[in-house]
Amino acid sequence: MTSPQSPAAGPLGSRPLGTRPLGVAAIGYAFMGQAHSNAWRTVANHFDVPNFEQKVLVGRDAVAVAAAAKKYGWSESATDWREVIARDDIDIVDICAPGWLHAEIATAALAAGKHVLVEKPLANSLAESETMVAAAKAARAAGVRSMVGFNYRRIPALALAAKLIAEGELGSIRQVRASYLQDWLADSESPMTWRLRKETAGSGALSDIASHAIDQVQYLLGDTVTEVSGKLHTFTTERPGPDGPEPVTVDDAAWATLSMASGAMASVDVSRVALGQKNALRVEVYGTTGSITFNLENPNELYFLNGTEPIEVQGFRRILVTEPEHPYISGWWPQGHVLGWEHSFTHQIRDFLLNISTGTDPSPSFEEGYGVQQVLAAIETSSAAGGSTVAIPQIITISKD
Amino acid sequence: MTSPQSPAAGPLGSRPLGTRPLGVAAIGYAFMGQAHSNAWRTVANHFDVPNFEQKVLVGRDAVAVAAAAKKYGWSESATDWREVIARDDIDIVDICAPGWLHAEIATAALAAGKHVLVEKPLANSLAESETMVAAAKAARAAGVRSMVGFNYRRIPALALAAKLIAEGELGSIRQVRASYLQDWLADSESPMTWRLRKETAGSGALSDIASHAIDQVQYLLGDTVTEVSGKLHTFTTERPGPDGPEPVTVDDAAWATLSMASGAMASVDVSRVALGQKNALRVEVYGTTGSITFNLENPNELYFLNGTEPIEVQGFRRILVTEPEHPYISGWWPQGHVLGWEHSFTHQIRDFLLNISTGTDPSPSFEEGYGVQQVLAAIETSSAAGGSTVAIPQIITISKD
Amino acid sequence: MTSPQSPAAGPLGSRPLGTRPLGVAAIGYAFMGQAHSNAWRTVANHFDVPNFEQKVLVGRDAVAVAAAAKKYGWSESATDWREVIARDDIDIVDICAPGWLHAEIATAALAAGKHVLVEKPLANSLAESETMVAAAKAARAAGVRSMVGFNYRRIPALALAAKLIAEGELGSIRQVRASYLQDWLADSESPMTWRLRKETAGSGALSDIASHAIDQVQYLLGDTVTEVSGKLHTFTTERPGPDGPEPVTVDDAAWATLSMASGAMASVDVSRVALGQKNALRVEVYGTTGSITFNLENPNELYFLNGTEPIEVQGFRRILVTEPEHPYISGWWPQGHVLGWEHSFTHQIRDFLLNISTGTDPSPSFEEGYGVQQVLAAIETSSAAGGSTVAIPQIITISKD
Amino acid sequence: MTSPQSPAAGPLGSRPLGTRPLGVAAIGYAFMGQAHSNAWRTVANHFDVPNFEQKVLVGRDAVAVAAAAKKYGWSESATDWREVIARDDIDIVDICAPGWLHAEIATAALAAGKHVLVEKPLANSLAESETMVAAAKAARAAGVRSMVGFNYRRIPALALAAKLIAEGELGSIRQVRASYLQDWLADSESPMTWRLRKETAGSGALSDIASHAIDQVQYLLGDTVTEVSGKLHTFTTERPGPDGPEPVTVDDAAWATLSMASGAMASVDVSRVALGQKNALRVEVYGTTGSITFNLENPNELYFLNGTEPIEVQGFRRILVTEPEHPYISGWWPQGHVLGWEHSFTHQIRDFLLNISTGTDPSPSFEEGYGVQQVLAAIETSSAAGGSTVAIPQIITISKD
Repeated sequence: MTSPQSPAAGPLGSRPLGTRPLGVAAIGYAFMGQAHSNAWRTVANHFDVPNFEQKVLVGRDAVAVAAAAKKYGWSESATDWREVIARDDIDIVDICAPGWLHAEIATAALAAGKHVLVEKPLANSLAESETMVAAAKAARAAGVRSMVGFNYRRIPALALAAKLIAEGELGSIRQVRASYLQDWLADSESPMTWRLRKETAGSGALSDIASHAIDQVQYLLGDTVTEVSGKLHTFTTERPGPDGPEPVTVDDAAWATLSMASGAMASVDVSRVALGQKNALRVEVYGTTGSITFNLENPNELYFLNGTEPIEVQGFRRILVTEPEHPYISGWWPQGHVLGWEHSFTHQIRDFLLNISTGTDPSPSFEEGYGVQQVLAAIETSSAAGGSTVAIPQIITISKD
Repeated sequence: MTSPQSPAAGPLGSRPLGTRPLGVAAIGYAFMGQAHSNAWRTVANHFDVPNFEQKVLVGRDAVAVAAAAKKYGWSESATDWREVIARDDIDIVDICAPGWLHAEIATAALAAGKHVLVEKPLANSLAESETMVAAAKAARAAGVRSMVGFNYRRIPALALAAKLIAEGELGSIRQVRASYLQDWLADSESPMTWRLRKETAGSGALSDIASHAIDQVQYLLGDTVTEVSGKLHTFTTERPGPDGPEPVTVDDAAWATLSMASGAMASVDVSRVALGQKNALRVEVYGTTGSITFNLENPNELYFLNGTEPIEVQGFRRILVTEPEHPYISGWWPQGHVLGWEHSFTHQIRDFLLNISTGTDPSPSFEEGYGVQQVLAAIETSSAAGGSTVAIPQIITISKD
Repeated sequence: MTSPQSPAAGPLGSRPLGTRPLGVAAIGYAFMGQAHSNAWRTVANHFDVPNFEQKVLVGRDAVAVAAAAKKYGWSESATDWREVIARDDIDIVDICAPGWLHAEIATAALAAGKHVLVEKPLANSLAESETMVAAAKAARAAGVRSMVGFNYRRIPALALAAKLIAEGELGSIRQVRASYLQDWLADSESPMTWRLRKETAGSGALSDIASHAIDQVQYLLGDTVTEVSGKLHTFTTERPGPDGPEPVTVDDAAWATLSMASGAMASVDVSRVALGQKNALRVEVYGTTGSITFNLENPNELYFLNGTEPIEVQGFRRILVTEPEHPYISGWWPQGHVLGWEHSFTHQIRDFLLNISTGTDPSPSFEEGYGVQQVLAAIETSSAAGGSTVAIPQIITISKD
Repeated sequence: MTSPQSPAAGPLGSRPLGTRPLGVAAIGYAFMGQAHSNAWRTVANHFDVPNFEQKVLVGRDAVAVAAAAKKYGWSESATDWREVIARDDIDIVDICAPGWLHAEIATAALAAGKHVLVEKPLANSLAESETMVAAAKAARAAGVRSMVGFNYRRIPALALAAKLIAEGELGSIRQVRASYLQDWLADSESPMTWRLRKETAGSGALSDIASHAIDQVQYLLGDTVTEVSGKLHTFTTERPGPDGPEPVTVDDAAWATLSMASGAMASVDVSRVALGQKNALRVEVYGTTGSITFNLENPNELYFLNGTEPIEVQGFRRILVTEPEHPYISGWWPQGHVLGWEHSFTHQIRDFLLNISTGTDPSPSFEEGYGVQQVLAAIETSSAAGGSTVAIPQIITISKD
């Protein structure tokens, strides 16, 4: 597809639209690999997108990746991602590998002129993130697109929330309450994994799920965090490993208070030990004339209060976000026929493909992903300093689609 | 107080307003007696009502009623209701005795010129109800007031529902779904009581709780039932009595479809064996431009959908009916400080006292109570005939306050 | 594939397992066609199923069906279903055409030795249904499988409900409340369609959505309806057609009381004008020791009350049916990552394919579909007779998987 | 009644039980005065308590307090609280005056040998609180009882929560999320009041509503806060006064992270500008084997998850806390007949009266109230220091009833 030398060649980069389908490679076939594969497999059933082909799935274990490729609808499998990104028939690289590999793969793929979608969080460190931002900027100049996969922006209810806020339905936003509660580590005997070691995971609940919450705060408000005070905590400090107990070196839970550039305040708290909460990303936005609440365990519902109505009939209304008028829904079923969690990925692929075909830059960009990383890093710094306020050094402008 | 001979003497009947406080007698001190007593005890804490005194509580067991009188704030107790209604210092008789006594006491009290509040249902039979309606009509001509205690009309959320419907916020009503589910008979070994014998209770779930549901249908819509098809069922046909098993001769559950004079349709179903449902009077009203739902287990909430709003933001809103603008609330606490079930009785007493002081006729009148009895009787007739449609012979006009 | 002459040839009928993928044809590409296509497209991403190929999509409009085939992942399109079912490379026929075509296509396909999945309801009339049952019975003897698409049995929460009931967690079932409320006809100006004419649609809300509710009653309880009393009603009797107003000849809403063989009672009510209710199939099952409630607008949640626990902690618990231990979930995502409405079709295809590969008979069978038709017909008869009780002539045994 | 000189005289202090009813005086007749009066008026209707009399209501405006006394059932009114606490026929002083008067009145009343109930928070400053603790300690030695009115401990659902936690149903508690959201200051044009000035109110949302949340954290867990990090914020810094804009000198919202002595973590956040939230004190407690959630807007419901059940049926159950087996309910109505917000005061009076009659010390004691004040003060200190961790200097043991 597009080569860095010919950025202005056309809506599909250098290659005339329709010459051949876009070739897609995905790297990683675990949880996220399956979710992304499913989205590639189904997106064209529901949306008008440019032609593409699920070319190759990449993984380290040749046998396992071959089986996964067959199961998930990829034509081929491969074990060397470098070879794959060098192929001429590959136009898009979808990176579902663990976070510590993001920077290396993404910068190489962008350098090779491939459009890149990378799972969130952008990377495990600020330094890696900066490299990726630079690579994305360079590639962008050449018409090569990049996107970080904060897929929850594509939940129709949250997309509707962003729309209502942008249209002023809530007035001026005063405060946000965002939390993300899970319980998969509630059992103290749950074994040690790479996700619980700082060197492989970066951080714990913070990077894994607070990243989503923080992205939502910035996305929904079209605003940026300027200062944070935070605290990390590990409830279970040792877990069984294959050779006996091992220390857990990341956080089980985190709390932060965020000041926004607009003057709004936000609180974020996350946990992996909130027994009974399965996937509860909850967001509450309170403005001067309206409010919104959301819970990812009921992702088809947005609760909205219009504070300008007569007080007699004011109340949070449950909007079942399944009408043709709602974001993304026209591609799906009649009203009331709800969507699942995975559809956020389908919508993400749809938007990414349309960005490619129309020659526009996707959002969230790597810069937006970097903005989230900055907040995560500041929370860690604040926690280490006993909660003292930490300023975010550099403000990245958030563009909203 | 007011004598039948001098109906036009003044706003408090024949006696000049403020001469002395109204004297109140209550008959019965079981569940309903306690609830009514509590309302008499607290109504003046919250509302501006004419002066009254809790004079005497009447019951059959002298010792028990004396204890109850002391506990519930009555100055005296008595065992002979006939003597009490003959007293000159008694102006109001509040009948909380079982249904089979309603007709006798109410007609005697009205004949004695006492204002009468009688617990629902009006009576155990249509014949008794007719006597009571005639007595109320005669007394009314003499300025004596009568009311039947369908207290749920005074739940602020249901009063608000009636107001919104009357104001046209729902457009033309098409259908209503009313149900009342409890579970206090879910245990098959729960013992026999007078409530489970036809000769003492009249019917089972039908008269006890379907009566509330049917009153709500007629009240909320300002409409009357014209035809019914119904079914009664007894799941546990025998229960332990003191001398061994006894037959249950009333229904545990009932279902009915109601045609309304306006052309609307309503369904009603009730049960005392719906395990896990404690006091779930649920009402759903669907109109051409709006809808409402309610559940008595969360009595401070009314759910309202405004179908004329943009579809993008339509949804059932949870109105927490605790604002000063809401019915009855200005007498209570600031917004968000919810009321309990019992407050419906406080509001009922408040309205009854205001009817007396202003010389207006209360609603629900005995005629309205009789209208409910007619529907109950028709459901029994239909059930006995295998569900065949039964017409309601005579339509009583429902007046809405 | 399998020929009627060789029913015992093997787990895949006459053809040795693995010889070639099963060839699938789908007939119809409207709403249901898209939903089924999506299920065929994704089932192998999530479940281990026998190999199959999406061979051909059949529709009347050659251009439109070709476009749909491309979009939904079918290799070919065709306009003559007779030709398609005659093809040797077609093993499975998935009938998504309107109800009046079910009998003709299904009997022909079964006669041709094709496994048949047919959308619900089984047919528009009892007579057609009987033909189909006979065809299925004959084909079954030859190892040819048939299934009717009551897909909601494959909602994990409802499958869990059925499991809990079958395991006795609710004790003996006393009563069921099933309703299905929608609002797509709430606007009186919504235009006339074939769905609103008796000759094309058979009936209205009754066959379209009461069929689902009735199937759930029989499925969840493993029980059959023996008697019904019912009522149909049309709120908007005339709707705009291309040449002016046309009469609506089917019901907008229906109510019925059902007696079950076990002695349980069930009520069913459905509406297409319940403004604000989008796709609310609600089921409540009350037993002697437990209860269950469900609402299709929140399909990942099952509410269960265990009545044998200490009363102090009894209550309906919200089970988020997304754990690996729950039906169908192991093929999907980690806990808390909810599924959409469409996944019921994916599970239906999965089970149908496994029935084929293991040589077992699917449920719901055509007989079960016929059982639902009998109840629908009896409700119509009862309604026409003013609600009189109508017995179901012949009881079909429901087999539960 | 009891004199400091004769502490051992008997269960009612120096005066033999039953000599005469306890004489009660209440100081203050605004919102809290009305709520307390209502509780005194109704407590004996529902509970067996020692005899008492509503003697005198005290307020500054002679005319207004006389009217209030009449309305709320007090025999007399008065304007000088010093005279009232000197009366021999007054045994109990119920202080509903604003916070800045608590210390002076309470210490004087205790010195006069009167049992004292004081509204929360204990006082406006730590220094005043210390004086009150000393006075309570001295009085306690003389058999004089004192209690601070954290009435939400007497909400049956929260009392049940505390019981379940104390019995180990949640295992070891890991984290608590407590918030209290209101919206009565959401309108920026809402006028200036004494509640928005630091000199009269002490602080804003912090002392008014965070005090409740913090008390719940300590009460429910039977644990104490050891360290805090906090932030206060004022969204509307100027509000209209009678002579033009005036500065708001207290917080509109507050956030804090609390470390508990047991190792548990708690977060608290409160706001008076959370548009649409009316009185949402929400508490979530996550333990190793169970979890609990609660919302004061639905005060009759406790949600409880038992994590030791089979995962297949785990879920938060809605316990409708209205069974005779539940705390305080046996004095009220049958199951499912819900209580209102005000009943927490009725239960508080009941418990306080029983403490007096049985000669036991009430909880929450002034020491417990002081413990809350310490946490509030530490949050202010932390906020002023940019969120730095502040230790609580002295740990008060919490006794649970």
